[in-house]
Amino acid sequence: MIKRIGKYTIKFLDEPLISSFASVAGKPESEGPLKDGFDKIIYDSHAMKDTFEEAESLFQQEAVTLALGKWGGKAEDVDFVFAGDLLNQCIASSFGLKGFNIPYLGQYGACSTSAQSLIMAAAFIESKAAKAALAVTSSHFCSAERQFRFPLEYGGVRTPTAQRTVTGAAAFVVESTENPTKSAKSPLLCPKISSATVGKIVDLGVTDANNMGAAMAPAAADTLKTYFDDTGKSPSDYDMIFTGDLGIVGSKLLYELMREKGYNIKENHRDCGLMIYDINTQDVHAGGSGCGCGACTLSAYILPKLSKGEYKKVLYMATGALMSSTSGTQGNTIPSVAHLVELKCAKG
Amino acid sequence: MIKRIGKYTIKFLDEPLISSFASVAGKPESEGPLKDGFDKIIYDSHAMKDTFEEAESLFQQEAVTLALGKWGGKAEDVDFVFAGDLLNQCIASSFGLKGFNIPYLGQYGACSTSAQSLIMAAAFIESKAAKAALAVTSSHFCSAERQFRFPLEYGGVRTPTAQRTVTGAAAFVVESTENPTKSAKSPLLCPKISSATVGKIVDLGVTDANNMGAAMAPAAADTLKTYFDDTGKSPSDYDMIFTGDLGIVGSKLLYELMREKGYNIKENHRDCGLMIYDINTQDVHAGGSGCGCGACTLSAYILPKLSKGEYKKVLYMATGALMSSTSGTQGNTIPSVAHLVELKCAKG
Repeated sequence: MIKRIGKYTIKFLDEPLISSFASVAGKPESEGPLKDGFDKIIYDSHAMKDTFEEAESLFQQEAVTLALGKWGGKAEDVDFVFAGDLLNQCIASSFGLKGFNIPYLGQYGACSTSAQSLIMAAAFIESKAAKAALAVTSSHFCSAERQFRFPLEYGGVRTPTAQRTVTGAAAFVVESTENPTKSAKSPLLCPKISSATVGKIVDLGVTDANNMGAAMAPAAADTLKTYFDDTGKSPSDYDMIFTGDLGIVGSKLLYELMREKGYNIKENHRDCGLMIYDINTQDVHAGGSGCGCGACTLSAYILPKLSKGEYKKVLYMATGALMSSTSGTQGNTIPSVAHLVELKCAKG
Repeated sequence: MIKRIGKYTIKFLDEPLISSFASVAGKPESEGPLKDGFDKIIYDSHAMKDTFEEAESLFQQEAVTLALGKWGGKAEDVDFVFAGDLLNQCIASSFGLKGFNIPYLGQYGACSTSAQSLIMAAAFIESKAAKAALAVTSSHFCSAERQFRFPLEYGGVRTPTAQRTVTGAAAFVVESTENPTKSAKSPLLCPKISSATVGKIVDLGVTDANNMGAAMAPAAADTLKTYFDDTGKSPSDYDMIFTGDLGIVGSKLLYELMREKGYNIKENHRDCGLMIYDINTQDVHAGGSGCGCGACTLSAYILPKLSKGEYKKVLYMATGALMSSTSGTQGNTIPSVAHLVELKCAKG
């Protein structure tokens, strides 16, 4: 059962368990700081497929297969899969997941899809609609670049504020703690999803598709402030506050926006876009981005730390820019959204 | 709370109420059989906006405004909006709904989005995450045609199996029956959402983007058969079984596929794609399609009949083709999905 707290936040009373998770990343990601955390690296951008889009689907397939393997369950033990990606009509997900035969509910939150899918899975568990659900997402530098910006062959020079779309996919098995068959098999009795804030669409008028961090920071600030207002918590209540892919520019803006709202988060904030790459040595400009950025960092770094008890309680907030290349070409702004989940390893 | 029935079906024990709904349709739709059912007609394809995409957003805005008005509530009384559309990155929804400031969870089920969003809203109500939620979707002939097929100016001749994308949007307020403040204001104490089956992705290898009915019929048959298997119900238990947008070709295929599975649904089946247009006099080839097709027909015809008690119990199943123009150009098949909701006006 879910309890509403304050105006917007929901508390998952049974605290669904993320009992398995896996990530699959590409070559540049394997050269970054999280290299040891990924479950699999696929070095070939094409992943032996004919197209980058099919390659991205394969990343999702592999992530799900690995997550199910670590869980000790089969696809048929999963009641629903919540998945989405950045490609037009989310084809990385539909083509990637069709072979698993799991009831499919496509999600679109752009780069916030990782958090959104976890919220969906947790809500379905709490409602008793599901005993186990999968949350899956992906992004791919090559498929994203040619869809949203320029053909790769064009070799366009990127602006300093641009971020590099992460090539990677991650899958998370979320299950009821009342699901003893599976929970018992799982080596992890945490992390748990304890509460969440679903974001409103925020649009401060940024139009530069090469500065997604700036477009998304106001949404992040809005959701984070809402969460603190609703729960009475403050940044120091958390071991760390993670954002999905704000990059350098967006992170700095978030600090500023939060300071204006009376919160200093700089001391215990990290952005997955600045964790997955070494921005000093890798050619990624303002950091990583894409659905795979937050999702892979969550799987490769954040959840393992929670599992080991190195973190007790963290916030994971993924941000998404809800534009398309059509809306950009038509001169429109970039509406953004941020969804937040509280993850923890201890009761209370 | 939700109870699982059989392997895939979920039963909404509190039976959330669809307490308000509204549809906004375009000119060709206003010339069809459902003309008196729409709440508003926008005759101009551009809806006084610069682009068809912005026009589609306006359709969503208007549908939500009308649904809230009929409900007697405000946007701030709604806890979540579940919405999606056919445009790349679902911009009709993100731009259309950003002004309402409702926590936003983007859905992507292609033309199955109407049923998917209703299922999401109902599940969130049952989990107590929400007291009231909106389910919204839209499609627009002009924005869809140029995105998925050809520029309108090209004047391409359409094949006989092609369907016409409906220009229209619909919004549904779903709320808890334990939400007396709002329910009491509502003139309708039904229809209620009583059960649902979320579909698996089905792909029998159809590749013709001008024959979506054929691509989607197997998904519809799979979900409908699953629902009957899980519940022990049969077609005659329902006043009518509605599909979202199979058109002539897809409907015939569905009859055949269901007959092979041992069910005769022909007698009490209607397809929204064949209801929203008069296919004998309107130039729509195999019927209507698009997210707006099922959604507008649901709002303009099916729900009013349930409200008046003319139907006691119906199945509404919306089908979606989970492809993109990229996957089509790359020679891929059309994976499809169908989500089903049982709607009723009587207890039991």
